[in-house]
Amino acid sequence: MSRPTTVTAAVLVIGDEILSGRTKDRNLGYIAEYLANIGVDVREARVVPDVEDEIVAAVNALRARYDYLITTGGIGPTHDDITADSIGRAFGVPVGEDPRAIAIMLERYAPADLTPARRRMARMPEGAELIENPISRAPGFRIGNVYVLAGVPAVMQAMLDFAVKSMKTGALMRVEVIAAGSLPEGLYGEALGRIASAHPNVAIGSYPSFRDGRFNNQIVVRGKDEEAVAAARRAVEEMVAALSRNAVAS
Amino acid sequence: MSRPTTVTAAVLVIGDEILSGRTKDRNLGYIAEYLANIGVDVREARVVPDVEDEIVAAVNALRARYDYLITTGGIGPTHDDITADSIGRAFGVPVGEDPRAIAIMLERYAPADLTPARRRMARMPEGAELIENPISRAPGFRIGNVYVLAGVPAVMQAMLDFAVKSMKTGALMRVEVIAAGSLPEGLYGEALGRIASAHPNVAIGSYPSFRDGRFNNQIVVRGKDEEAVAAARRAVEEMVAALSRNAVAS
Repeated sequence: MSRPTTVTAAVLVIGDEILSGRTKDRNLGYIAEYLANIGVDVREARVVPDVEDEIVAAVNALRARYDYLITTGGIGPTHDDITADSIGRAFGVPVGEDPRAIAIMLERYAPADLTPARRRMARMPEGAELIENPISRAPGFRIGNVYVLAGVPAVMQAMLDFAVKSMKTGALMRVEVIAAGSLPEGLYGEALGRIASAHPNVAIGSYPSFRDGRFNNQIVVRGKDEEAVAAARRAVEEMVAALSRNAVAS
Repeated sequence: MSRPTTVTAAVLVIGDEILSGRTKDRNLGYIAEYLANIGVDVREARVVPDVEDEIVAAVNALRARYDYLITTGGIGPTHDDITADSIGRAFGVPVGEDPRAIAIMLERYAPADLTPARRRMARMPEGAELIENPISRAPGFRIGNVYVLAGVPAVMQAMLDFAVKSMKTGALMRVEVIAAGSLPEGLYGEALGRIASAHPNVAIGSYPSFRDGRFNNQIVVRGKDEEAVAAARRAVEEMVAALSRNAVAS
C-alpha cells in the first residue's frame, strides 16, 4: 500500500481588528475545516497586525515551511490595506496595477467610479494569478504557494471556493469521535495514553467542554490510514465502555 | 505630558483541534478584548498543534518579543496535554509534581481519586507560580512572563481573571468608531488615507462587513493619546458627513 500523501497549509490572519478583540476571527476555523475536508492539513496559524514588517516576516516564515499559505485581510481600498504590497516585498517582486483586475472591476464600476482608492484593489505583485471574487468583484490573488484572500468572511469564502481548484490535495484525514460523556478525563487518561502509545499511526485527543456546570468529554481519533483509525477507535470504545461499567458499579 | 506607556502581549493557542477546524477557537478574541480593556495590547497570536517542538519554538519566539505571553490549552490529564513539559523545555528547567498543586487538587478529589492521570495536572516547571482555577481546581501557572491557561473557555476565563492581577498594565487604548454605513470604502479611501497621514499618533482602520447582500462600513480610530484620538475622530466624522451629502446630492 502506498503511504497516504500529506499536503500542509498555514493560515495568516492579517488585521489590527482581530488583535484588538473588536472583530472576532471566523476565518481560521472556516478555512481549517474546509481544507481538512479536501485533504489539506492546516498545521499552523498566525495573526499579525497591519504592519508591513510583521506581514512580510510571517509570510516568509510560513510559505517556506508549508505547501500552502492562505492569508486573509488587508486587500480592500483603504490606506490600511497593505497586504498586496507586503506580499510583493516578501517575494521581492514589484507591485503594480494589474490590467486584468482593472478589467474585472470595470464590469462592476463605471469608469468614472473607478476611484484611485478602488484602483488600489487592482494592485498585484508581478507574476500573481487572480482569484475570482463573485461577491464584490475586486479579486484576490495567488503568487507562488501563497493565496491572498479577503477578510470579510462572505468574500473570503467565495474566494476560497475558487482558490482550492489549483491546490493539490492529499489523503483525507479520517476522524472518529467517541463520546465519553461525563466519564472524567482523570479516570481514562492513563488508559487512553496506553492506547495512544499502542496506535502510533493515529493522533488521539481528548477534548472536554464545560456547560451548565458539568464537563462533557469527547475523544477524537484522527489519521490518514483508515484501518489504523478504525482499530484505535475500537480500542477507545472498549475502554470507555469498560470504565463506564466500573463507574456505574462503584 | 509623559508618553503613554505601552504593555504588549501575544497569545499562543495550543491544540490540534483548532487547526483541524473541529473546535472553533473562542479564546483569542476573549483574551484580546479583555487585555485591551486593562491596557495590555495583544500584538500577535499563533496557533500550534500538540507537538512539543512546535510549542517550544513558538513560546520562545513570543516570550522574547512581548511583555507577556498567554497560552491556552494542553494542561489537562491526558497524554495529549503536553504544555507543561513543553514550557519547561522552553525555559530549560525541570518539570515535576508540584506539592502546592497536589494540595489544591486534594480539596476536590479524595486521595484515592487522585489518579496518575490527574496527578499529571500537578506537573509544573520549576519556579512556576500557580494560577487559581475556581472551576475545576487543577491550576494553571505562570513562569517568567508566560501565563499558561486552560483551553476550555470557562476555565480559561476564570484563570485569566486571576492571572491579570500580576500583570503591569499600560495606558488604555482609546477607541472611537465612526459609522460609514453604506458609504463605499472606494469613495472615502483616498480622503481617509489623507486623514491617516495627518494624524500619525493614531491608527485608523476601515472595516467592512457584508450582510444581506450589502456592505456596512465602520471606521475605527485607535490610540493612547485622548486628544489625538478625538481630533482624528472629528476629521473622520466631517469627511463622512461631507461625502454622504455629496452621495445624496449626486
